[in-house]
Amino acid sequence: MTDFLGFLKPQNMSLFTDFYELTMCAAYFDNQHLENATFDLFIRRLPENRSYFLFVGLEEALQYLQNIRFTKEHLTYLKKQGFNDNFLDYLQNFRFTGEVWAVPEGTITFPNEPLIRVTAPIIEAQLIETFLLNTINLQTMIATKASRVIHAAKGKTVIEFGLRREPGIDAGMKVARSSYIAGCQGTSNVLAGMAYNIPVFGTMAHSFIMSYSREIDAFRAFAKTFPAKSTLLIDTYDDLAGAQKAALVAKELQAKNIKLGGVRLDSGDLAETSKKVRKILDDNGLDYVKIFASGDLDEFKVNELLAKEAKIDAFGVGTKMGTSADRPYLDIIYKLCESQNANGTYSPIMKLSKDKITLPGRKQVYRTKDNNGNFKKDTIALTDEKIEGEPLLVKVMEKGKLVSNLPTLEQIRTTAKENLDKLPKQYKALTQAPTYPVELSQKLKELIEKLTQQIITNEINGENTD
Amino acid sequence: MTDFLGFLKPQNMSLFTDFYELTMCAAYFDNQHLENATFDLFIRRLPENRSYFLFVGLEEALQYLQNIRFTKEHLTYLKKQGFNDNFLDYLQNFRFTGEVWAVPEGTITFPNEPLIRVTAPIIEAQLIETFLLNTINLQTMIATKASRVIHAAKGKTVIEFGLRREPGIDAGMKVARSSYIAGCQGTSNVLAGMAYNIPVFGTMAHSFIMSYSREIDAFRAFAKTFPAKSTLLIDTYDDLAGAQKAALVAKELQAKNIKLGGVRLDSGDLAETSKKVRKILDDNGLDYVKIFASGDLDEFKVNELLAKEAKIDAFGVGTKMGTSADRPYLDIIYKLCESQNANGTYSPIMKLSKDKITLPGRKQVYRTKDNNGNFKKDTIALTDEKIEGEPLLVKVMEKGKLVSNLPTLEQIRTTAKENLDKLPKQYKALTQAPTYPVELSQKLKELIEKLTQQIITNEINGENTD
Repeated sequence: MTDFLGFLKPQNMSLFTDFYELTMCAAYFDNQHLENATFDLFIRRLPENRSYFLFVGLEEALQYLQNIRFTKEHLTYLKKQGFNDNFLDYLQNFRFTGEVWAVPEGTITFPNEPLIRVTAPIIEAQLIETFLLNTINLQTMIATKASRVIHAAKGKTVIEFGLRREPGIDAGMKVARSSYIAGCQGTSNVLAGMAYNIPVFGTMAHSFIMSYSREIDAFRAFAKTFPAKSTLLIDTYDDLAGAQKAALVAKELQAKNIKLGGVRLDSGDLAETSKKVRKILDDNGLDYVKIFASGDLDEFKVNELLAKEAKIDAFGVGTKMGTSADRPYLDIIYKLCESQNANGTYSPIMKLSKDKITLPGRKQVYRTKDNNGNFKKDTIALTDEKIEGEPLLVKVMEKGKLVSNLPTLEQIRTTAKENLDKLPKQYKALTQAPTYPVELSQKLKELIEKLTQQIITNEINGENTD
Repeated sequence: MTDFLGFLKPQNMSLFTDFYELTMCAAYFDNQHLENATFDLFIRRLPENRSYFLFVGLEEALQYLQNIRFTKEHLTYLKKQGFNDNFLDYLQNFRFTGEVWAVPEGTITFPNEPLIRVTAPIIEAQLIETFLLNTINLQTMIATKASRVIHAAKGKTVIEFGLRREPGIDAGMKVARSSYIAGCQGTSNVLAGMAYNIPVFGTMAHSFIMSYSREIDAFRAFAKTFPAKSTLLIDTYDDLAGAQKAALVAKELQAKNIKLGGVRLDSGDLAETSKKVRKILDDNGLDYVKIFASGDLDEFKVNELLAKEAKIDAFGVGTKMGTSADRPYLDIIYKLCESQNANGTYSPIMKLSKDKITLPGRKQVYRTKDNNGNFKKDTIALTDEKIEGEPLLVKVMEKGKLVSNLPTLEQIRTTAKENLDKLPKQYKALTQAPTYPVELSQKLKELIEKLTQQIITNEINGENTD
């Protein structure tokens, strides 16, 4: 039997890579092409309806870089795949020794802005591509999606509830973390609760109700075990009949000086039903009993419910947030932007495939703000330029070692909130948000023009074919 | 620093669950509600453009059931979450002891058909819900999507290339396995290659080309290291100029009696470009050099390319298959369908929430075939009925132990191919496929009618509220 989870251990992550990273590294090694190179990790464009990204995932990326190793088992496997002994000897002592700059987790970012910049011997910088993309893609995608749900909920509580349909075990963990950073109050995922110290929530499913011969018996049984924090699920058979029974149980608890926490709706017209349920509860003097809604929610549904003045106090948002269902990936890439020459200097590099141009050179992103501290404009520039604004990329790793302590999860969550607050409201519209201005510096534009001409002359018009 | 991957170890999967599973279990325990219950795992409906499911994921589900345990660390955490000592003592010795029936991996299935049926003490059967859904959702979703790509490719090679944008580490592994079962020839994921013994593929990225001052130098360097199996990426600057240079290098290799493997296109109009590149290669006497295409492919694009008679020999399919981008989740659920009475007999149970009816009782699925062995019709029936056709659910676990050896990955892949071959062609149409007939047996329909009336009388019209 395959030990599925057994393979996910940290020391196997060196092989969690596309095969071509290893063949390229072998070719670099074989051709003694060992110079430094700089790669940018960035997102090419915004998905439909998105107008910014909330960057998350750096902590795991840095953990990976610190720990990447090749074990004997790996080398034996790679030998069978045709790699030669010299290269395998090199891999045996492989360590990541590069310099890494990155924007902090919780930063608001935009297309084409470098999010992580790696300068390292090209074999090292190449090999790490797949893992970095994989982890930043998922976490930034989910944090971005979740931040939209939080915005739509206008201050009401949102809990991440999607574990059962999130794509796998690692995704279940990362969705909990990323959506908590984005502003969710907690998760249903108990392991994420333990691992990251995130609050966990949840009370009962339909099966609990159905396992009793009468709905009211199920309510009473649950309230007996969790008197203080029960949320009774009232739509197993009929939501209004369920609300009446929940009210009855709430009053039984009240007679013992216990307050029922809430009721949950999981189906039907949540706006209409919530109003009727609120009335049933209020008519029974149970104004303190909260109404919790779940079932197929996302930022659009939450927005619609609140626009209809639904009487909902908290939202359990699951599948559509936890899978970023309307766009389950980012156009995230990792591209070579400069390479070291024999004399130690660096030359900028760009790619010119159809519609797939990349920004050459070692770059920094500068953000300018208005007098209230709100974000106004970003400029992508070369690092040797002097540009107005706050630089977003900070050095996080030098010679393969962390240069400072990383923020805690709570600090990242606070950073995210501060940044989301400083992003002007129009950019947070759920649809048809305007484009936030991101400019290229004059020197960067000139460099692109120069390199484009060089490529056309040398590569496309056939000079370099001897 | 959080040890992200460290938390994904097998012994932590008991907490990889929604919090409400544990609160429900605590309430069951506290109320001495310890009878057996039966749950069905099934998919409620087909996503748009899907007409069947290719079931994958059972092996990991069974591994989980065999190994689920609560450690001291888990119990300490749960105590802090408010669970009482009696329940925690129970969890300390928790083992899954139930009976499990399931359709084999590689089975073609349809909405509402039980895929996994669990009969166990209700606490055990409840607790496992989240993990089972999580693992079957991802793997069946991907296998189904990949089988569509394979169908569209009409026998041409398809390689799974999506690792960098698949949602997390576990997804990266499961996508490789699921798409291999569905008919892909291999994956770019090296760790999946090692873990599951799946062929791995891949040669070079744009960065390799760009790291050399001239494209042709990059081609020559790569061919030096991997002379026999190079696939040269030709679109970094201009695909046709790249093809000319690849032809030059191929002829240099030919002079040494080495045959270049292929060239890869990753951008632009793949149908048109592939024809021009084919001509360049053929004009140079390189008819043996294959053309490999990648870039934003899915079943619709592959179908379109072949309809345009693109000269493509193999497809690298990434993000859209590896995320099931047009529908990144299944409407997969796990529902109580019967519960044991004090006297040991079982009573069927159903749910009647708006639009969310479930099928009551312990069930089996029977498949009838035509004279050629092709699938004709399925019937969902109660297990005590005598129904025509082959029963799909087989017993895989008894008293928490496997009852037979599980098939190998290659066997599952063969099963999937045989089943896909027996599914009549009209059901494999990429869009607007007809609905495969799935009937409910007469006895099951009568039972649904009877239970509906009971629920209306007892729960909705307010009888059961004393």
